[in-house]
Amino acid sequence: MKLYTSTRAPNPRRVLMFMAEKGIADITTVQIDLGKAEHRSEAFAQLNPMAQVPVLELPDGRTLAETRAICTYLEGMYPNPNLMGEDFEERAFIEMMDRRCELQLFLRIANCVRHTHPGLAPLEQPQFPDFGAAQGARVRETARWLDGVLADRDFLAGERFTIADITGFCALEFARGLMKFRPSGEGLTNLQAWRDRIAERPSARIV
Amino acid sequence: MKLYTSTRAPNPRRVLMFMAEKGIADITTVQIDLGKAEHRSEAFAQLNPMAQVPVLELPDGRTLAETRAICTYLEGMYPNPNLMGEDFEERAFIEMMDRRCELQLFLRIANCVRHTHPGLAPLEQPQFPDFGAAQGARVRETARWLDGVLADRDFLAGERFTIADITGFCALEFARGLMKFRPSGEGLTNLQAWRDRIAERPSARIV
Ligand SMILES: N[C@@H](CCC(=O)N[C@@H](CS)C(=O)NCC(=O)O)C(=O)O
Ligand SMILES: N[C@@H](CCC(=O)N[C@@H](CS)C(=O)NCC(=O)O)C(=O)O
Repeated sequence: MKLYTSTRAPNPRRVLMFMAEKGIADITTVQIDLGKAEHRSEAFAQLNPMAQVPVLELPDGRTLAETRAICTYLEGMYPNPNLMGEDFEERAFIEMMDRRCELQLFLRIANCVRHTHPGLAPLEQPQFPDFGAAQGARVRETARWLDGVLADRDFLAGERFTIADITGFCALEFARGLMKFRPSGEGLTNLQAWRDRIAERPSARIV
Repeated sequence: MKLYTSTRAPNPRRVLMFMAEKGIADITTVQIDLGKAEHRSEAFAQLNPMAQVPVLELPDGRTLAETRAICTYLEGMYPNPNLMGEDFEERAFIEMMDRRCELQLFLRIANCVRHTHPGLAPLEQPQFPDFGAAQGARVRETARWLDGVLADRDFLAGERFTIADITGFCALEFARGLMKFRPSGEGLTNLQAWRDRIAERPSARIV
């Protein structure tokens, strides 16, 4: 199989980290240069009409896009270690936290960065800087809530590492690079400690 | 079990439609009045710290939030008819389309409405009307793409009714009410025909 990815892009990073946690080594990666708008080419539109990375090309040639959908497929193909829940009940609770990390943290960071950072202007036209700044304030709200969640558990969705930790971690890494956001800078010591623990995992080093 | 819901709110509607398709009749609904900010009470924060509906209260008293996570749980409890995929491969492809409907259609409609409609001002402060209008234009782009998808299939994720049709339909109904958006008004005849077919299902009548 082939994974279309782009170095330093946070959504592909979620899939690469998921693969590394499972020790998946037989998927080739193909680099798409977002700076050169390679994802907006006709050829790439055949792979993903949404013009976004990541995209997974399956053995039969079909392509699967959407970060979490790719993870669902990989979880089925490579079940161990389990990252998305053993039964439907655990799957539902992990999905709740994964969605909160995606919708309330990751997307707000993306909105903030895409609407305020000059480097993202080629991807986001028109930019609305006031909206972006307001989203930045919401990122801080979510981070504060996560800090509370981590007061009495070691991982975001409970007592073990799951896909929710991947989504949360890749979101914070994105904010660290482009918003200069550090949980410790806001006094969020639980969130910073969790981030630092996750950063020690070998899967966190792949970008 | 109990479902905390709110009449005419589009996310709870997704769960109610999902339940109706499965013929689930043993879950009680509890109305939360968003207009009176009941979801922002201390009592509701115990159910969902994100202060949003829907929320499902499980038999053991735990609460599960996030529309799609609630559906994952209900799919496990009431497997027939299957709406989210029989095996991991089908699950992944349905999830891809469900996410596209949620991220590229539903959320853009929500952004447009919440940032431009005076009736939504109590829920969205501050509103950014220019951002909202730009999101409205993106809604139209996604609708055009969906119209093309439906040129050669009857349902959004393939040849049978799935959760993706629920997400897409509830999104369009939301846009119909608050953006006065009709696919036929944009010449999108496949999308309009699909919408009208879905609207005939008994599950579409519950709001
Ligand atoms: N909903 C998509 C989002 C993917 C996405 O936004 N990818 C970014 C890179 S992190 C991208 O390709 N951006 C290109 C652009 O905005 O033009 C997913 O879950 O995979
Ligand atoms: N990500 C949540 C979104 C839920 C949501 O936005 N619910 C709306 C009603 S459709 C709400 O409760 N809004 C209250 C508010 O915005 O204050 C989900 O999937 O359930």
